[in-house]
Amino acid sequence: MAKVAIVGAGFMGTATAWPLCDNGHEVRLVGTHLDGAIIQSCKERRYHPKLKRELPAGVTPYYVEDLAQALDGVEIVVSGVNSFGVHWIGRTLGPHLKPGQTVIAVTKGLEAAENGDLLILPDVLASELPESIRDKVKIVAIGGPCIAGELAARRQTCVLFGSRDGAAAKHLAQVFRTPYYHTWPTTDLVGLEVGVALKNAYVLPVGIANGLLDKAGGPDAAEAYMHNTAAAVFAEGCTEMEFLLRKMGGSSVFAYGLPGAGDCFVTSAGGRSMRLGRLLGKGHTFTEARQIMAGETLEAAMIVSTMGASIPKLTERGFLRPTDLPLMRALVDIVVYDKPVDLPFDSFFPNVP
Amino acid sequence: MAKVAIVGAGFMGTATAWPLCDNGHEVRLVGTHLDGAIIQSCKERRYHPKLKRELPAGVTPYYVEDLAQALDGVEIVVSGVNSFGVHWIGRTLGPHLKPGQTVIAVTKGLEAAENGDLLILPDVLASELPESIRDKVKIVAIGGPCIAGELAARRQTCVLFGSRDGAAAKHLAQVFRTPYYHTWPTTDLVGLEVGVALKNAYVLPVGIANGLLDKAGGPDAAEAYMHNTAAAVFAEGCTEMEFLLRKMGGSSVFAYGLPGAGDCFVTSAGGRSMRLGRLLGKGHTFTEARQIMAGETLEAAMIVSTMGASIPKLTERGFLRPTDLPLMRALVDIVVYDKPVDLPFDSFFPNVP
Repeated sequence: MAKVAIVGAGFMGTATAWPLCDNGHEVRLVGTHLDGAIIQSCKERRYHPKLKRELPAGVTPYYVEDLAQALDGVEIVVSGVNSFGVHWIGRTLGPHLKPGQTVIAVTKGLEAAENGDLLILPDVLASELPESIRDKVKIVAIGGPCIAGELAARRQTCVLFGSRDGAAAKHLAQVFRTPYYHTWPTTDLVGLEVGVALKNAYVLPVGIANGLLDKAGGPDAAEAYMHNTAAAVFAEGCTEMEFLLRKMGGSSVFAYGLPGAGDCFVTSAGGRSMRLGRLLGKGHTFTEARQIMAGETLEAAMIVSTMGASIPKLTERGFLRPTDLPLMRALVDIVVYDKPVDLPFDSFFPNVP
Repeated sequence: MAKVAIVGAGFMGTATAWPLCDNGHEVRLVGTHLDGAIIQSCKERRYHPKLKRELPAGVTPYYVEDLAQALDGVEIVVSGVNSFGVHWIGRTLGPHLKPGQTVIAVTKGLEAAENGDLLILPDVLASELPESIRDKVKIVAIGGPCIAGELAARRQTCVLFGSRDGAAAKHLAQVFRTPYYHTWPTTDLVGLEVGVALKNAYVLPVGIANGLLDKAGGPDAAEAYMHNTAAAVFAEGCTEMEFLLRKMGGSSVFAYGLPGAGDCFVTSAGGRSMRLGRLLGKGHTFTEARQIMAGETLEAAMIVSTMGASIPKLTERGFLRPTDLPLMRALVDIVVYDKPVDLPFDSFFPNVP
């Protein structure tokens, strides 16, 4: 049985405690400086107020001040922060990590380098570790269609554990695997990370289709919705994910597997990205929608902004053609340049054989 | 401008009249022997009772008895029958067809040959034509995520026009293309037909996930649904479509494009296949669900039955391995052998790199 520390007591990090505890591992849940109230509730009542659920018996909660104590002697550290916290967690964990330990990240996103290159977050995290330890710890990432609250409810869930270190991916997949949490190891870390990051962007147009329906006054007298439109942009999203996966050296498989189509499907079931898309489809500019959703973390806007920073440079460098990624370019126009919704259907599906 | 006859006055066949009329083509809508009441309504009130919509001005309705007159001088015949009617329409059209005409089919499905081979419906239709004309007409098929009522409402819709005759696919795509009906020609007719047929099977487990949630008493106190489960089977469905597309000589592209992921997405928005899946997930056997949905055409059950007739033979012949298509085999157990739902999650995603 392993000792595991989860750092970041938000939805997804905490939810991994369920399969870990069910497998008999010892779990230490460490809040960040933003999670004080959560940890207090966990300590006093063993109740996680975001997940709205009692913690499994095997979990010990820690305040961020006790991080060193919590990390002492663990084999695995789960990075449960969101994409804003990736640099922080790298810098924070760095001094505590020991050779042979594994860091496993649930964070989704991409960053754009100065030259436009897209960086996956496990690499961003690793870049913040001291050089002396960077190559001596293993980095693994979890990805795939997983709503945290459903994992904590032990609903049937299928995810991937990715690492360039195949043995580490395999070991961690086995550590977390339960009869309800089905895990596959993969060495295609880039493909996994690109797929799960882009899905937050590509679900936006599905929400936009809902908003366009609102704008049209809802279903008409003959009960026509806009499912055709939603399905078309869903398919174009998967198509652009496949294109970008290949361009970045990942496998096409993830466009139609768990990280691409699967993750886009689960995200389209609801949540902030769909609500944002709907506001945009209804006719609000991004600036207006941003105000309406004030205080909410908009992962979709973050990834579109990253792509907006990257695409012009990648195009200028010849890595992308000006005709590549028409749907993503339309999303950049909407989110970054505050333009009205205009989906370029006739530019979609350039790869039809 | 072309003269076009639509034979079969159901949802999808009739809906193609909208883009055709908007493009100024002359459209003749011919009911089958099952469509008498529809044609009567179209003649008397210019109202299509299934689509709940007034016909475009350019449409002339015909009873099946006037088929010869309706087909006289047309360049294009739309086969608007469902998969039960494919043999009938081939035999019925045969004597009337003239060299150079194009038959375009909206029908979705597959048939299993005696040896287990899967046959696409355009080939089944062609096999019913007299040999003297078979190679002198062009066969085209329409596929992709399109709910007929939304097409008739002129909602943004993206579809493929497939034919082994590339020029015919290109011409027909242009004849039907409008600012709301976006059409792409493809020569991968097999890929297109396999994708759009299988989606009716692979949407069943998405419905099953909804039914499993019902069976569990609905969302729990912390509001956990079963979206993770639905997304996992959605992704496995796309993965199995990709596998079968390639095995049958089609392109992988359609697994994550309009016919695969796109069509599966639109079908998961509702309808009979989702309702059937939900009943199965709730715990009803297929026999019970079949009775509850008495009188309804169950495309999902049809395609699963076809696969049930084909898979054992294809496996015996070595075309498939016993481990291929685990989700489809599970669906065959449920639909053909009336077994309880048991989704083999751990056999999914054999292609993870």
